[in-house]
Amino acid sequence: MGKNIVVMKFGGTSVGSIEKINKVAERAIKSKNEGNDVVITVSAMGDTTDDLIELASRISSNPPKREMDMLLSTGEQVSSALLAIAIAQKGGKAISLTGYQVGIFTDDIFSDAKILTIKKDRIFAEFEKDNIVIVAGFQGITNNNDITTLGRGGSDTTAVAIAAALNATHCEIFTDVDGVFTADPNIVSNARKINVLSYDEMLELASSGAKVLHLRAVEFAKNHGVIIHVRSSFNNNEGTWVMDTEKLNEKMEQAVVSGVTYDTNQVKISVFGIPDKPGVAAKLFGELAAANINIDMIVQNVGEKGIAAISFTIKKEDLQTCEKVVKELKEKIGIKNFEIDTDIAKLSIVGAGMKSHPGVAATMFSCLGDKGINIEMISTSPIIISCVIRKDRIIEAVRLLHEVFNLDKN
Amino acid sequence: MGKNIVVMKFGGTSVGSIEKINKVAERAIKSKNEGNDVVITVSAMGDTTDDLIELASRISSNPPKREMDMLLSTGEQVSSALLAIAIAQKGGKAISLTGYQVGIFTDDIFSDAKILTIKKDRIFAEFEKDNIVIVAGFQGITNNNDITTLGRGGSDTTAVAIAAALNATHCEIFTDVDGVFTADPNIVSNARKINVLSYDEMLELASSGAKVLHLRAVEFAKNHGVIIHVRSSFNNNEGTWVMDTEKLNEKMEQAVVSGVTYDTNQVKISVFGIPDKPGVAAKLFGELAAANINIDMIVQNVGEKGIAAISFTIKKEDLQTCEKVVKELKEKIGIKNFEIDTDIAKLSIVGAGMKSHPGVAATMFSCLGDKGINIEMISTSPIIISCVIRKDRIIEAVRLLHEVFNLDKN
Repeated sequence: MGKNIVVMKFGGTSVGSIEKINKVAERAIKSKNEGNDVVITVSAMGDTTDDLIELASRISSNPPKREMDMLLSTGEQVSSALLAIAIAQKGGKAISLTGYQVGIFTDDIFSDAKILTIKKDRIFAEFEKDNIVIVAGFQGITNNNDITTLGRGGSDTTAVAIAAALNATHCEIFTDVDGVFTADPNIVSNARKINVLSYDEMLELASSGAKVLHLRAVEFAKNHGVIIHVRSSFNNNEGTWVMDTEKLNEKMEQAVVSGVTYDTNQVKISVFGIPDKPGVAAKLFGELAAANINIDMIVQNVGEKGIAAISFTIKKEDLQTCEKVVKELKEKIGIKNFEIDTDIAKLSIVGAGMKSHPGVAATMFSCLGDKGINIEMISTSPIIISCVIRKDRIIEAVRLLHEVFNLDKN
Repeated sequence: MGKNIVVMKFGGTSVGSIEKINKVAERAIKSKNEGNDVVITVSAMGDTTDDLIELASRISSNPPKREMDMLLSTGEQVSSALLAIAIAQKGGKAISLTGYQVGIFTDDIFSDAKILTIKKDRIFAEFEKDNIVIVAGFQGITNNNDITTLGRGGSDTTAVAIAAALNATHCEIFTDVDGVFTADPNIVSNARKINVLSYDEMLELASSGAKVLHLRAVEFAKNHGVIIHVRSSFNNNEGTWVMDTEKLNEKMEQAVVSGVTYDTNQVKISVFGIPDKPGVAAKLFGELAAANINIDMIVQNVGEKGIAAISFTIKKEDLQTCEKVVKELKEKIGIKNFEIDTDIAKLSIVGAGMKSHPGVAATMFSCLGDKGINIEMISTSPIIISCVIRKDRIIEAVRLLHEVFNLDKN
């Protein structure tokens, strides 16, 4: 080919209206005219996905996941086709492709599928015809030809996976903010855009509440060395680069804490009266894993008489399934009781520099303690520290930590 | 297999709301529980298709047809998935399939594709799993994996083609009326439901304005001997059977005129000053056919000095393309001028018995003439007589003919 391959992804807000779709079309044509081969991945327009979920929920509280994927994948198909129409109207050449038409093969975990392989022949054939290639994000196909979706935010993953498959120089993720911030700018007014992040930092930020990039997309980028550029679809400013920062080492070492994030979409489950013998906790978490529930934080306490209590957190949307699994296990493994607490939030600080700076955790805990904010669960890794606190204190806590760690200053 | 295969098709109004989708689900489960293998073909919900067309029209007045098919095919995918969810919620087993997933292969005339073959293996595999199979109507796939649509009302064709492929005993077309009527009941209050029609009568009725069945579906049914039962989705009444009526001969011979129809979706193009030499008209209609425009009626008059005038009618939606073709041809073949008349309507009477009853045309023409309704074009075949008249007289004319031919009486 010889040409540079550019992969751009536009989220739901970036294609949320006809006007915005026209803007995306112009950006695509501009890049094409600069001599690139261009792939555009789009999400569904605005609230389309939520509207479809709402429609289904009026029929069933527990719709089959295969059928939900069939339903939801239409949102990206619509925005892809409309973008192709917009590009044609502006004199460009474009073709829209579904996940099936590209050949984005996934496993068969409906509503949360993982990409296995991406075929390249159709995309390259369209490049040969001088087409801008629009790929419906968020979706794939199983070997059995069933449509899958990649989970919320899955269009990011589509874009990164395509960039990896095509060996693109990098993958541009266009969104409605200027990049990744030191904290949510809606909460912390002096939050600052971060220029460069390592994959691991981005992973931790994404998994601890920063919504700007889908977790699995970052994992995919890390595993395949795809450089991501998160930027605004409304201007031409530089955004946040996510890459292997080993090469930028000296710069990186200064940032002890890169950002503060929070997540109010969590529920805490506490299970009491578990016999403290080997294999019981494994059984519990094994069954939850089999039901495809991701556990986030876990705390286990052995109480009196060898009876243990375990608390763990999950995403809100998994609560119904989780409750069912725990109820079924109650008698089987001898659980006395369990409690659900929906009034919690997770608070995290992330930074590659924490590895070599002891005392960060102590600063975090004492600063929360000083304000009477109770820490209910803690988890740490070399580059992240997370706490569970009461939900009604979360905004205050985010602002507090942003100030304590001087995140408004570069 | 051994089981009876039942194919049911539900139109847009029959799946226009969650409540109606639930009703369809119940009907499907009932038929399945009676021991049948069941295929359901659905249209898009209510106004979905029109809404999508409107969305595209806000981007482009001439969107690429391939992309329109990509866009519009989502409507049927949504209703199919929702119906599968509804059946599951009611305890049934169902799976929804797109045109691609079934393997409904078509030619590549986007927006008006013809079905070439239908694969049977996926449907039979789902029957084996005891699933009710829901097939998204109106869509197919080319050999190059591009999504096509079958034109307005194409879900009827999907249903009939599947019934033919699976050798179903008949194909049930559920709609919002009780069957095919002797005239539009909204206009003629004593219009009567017709019990049985031959394929040819149904073809003429469909092509002359009766909207209850898609023309191509009837052609397909005729060619493959599929018996169609057009009936209401809101009750269990017998509807109208469309079949090879040779076997019911004696009954049929009585109905001289079966129905009166009209079509206000037509435009008359008059082309003046055409050199009256061989090949000129062929050139004109050849180019129109190449642009995929269906010509309905044609009248040619040779005037003075060997200069001819030709008038023909087309569908309104083809007007823009037609105008373009005629303009381009103007100089090439020496046309002096052309006129577009959008204030016309087509009035038709259909009946298998007309073949053996001369005088029907005379009755029709004199009855219109008595009321001062001017006939501008005429076309006839053994079982249909059509006239073009002014649009503002059409309702009056339909009522007049319904009465003159005693269509309210069996």
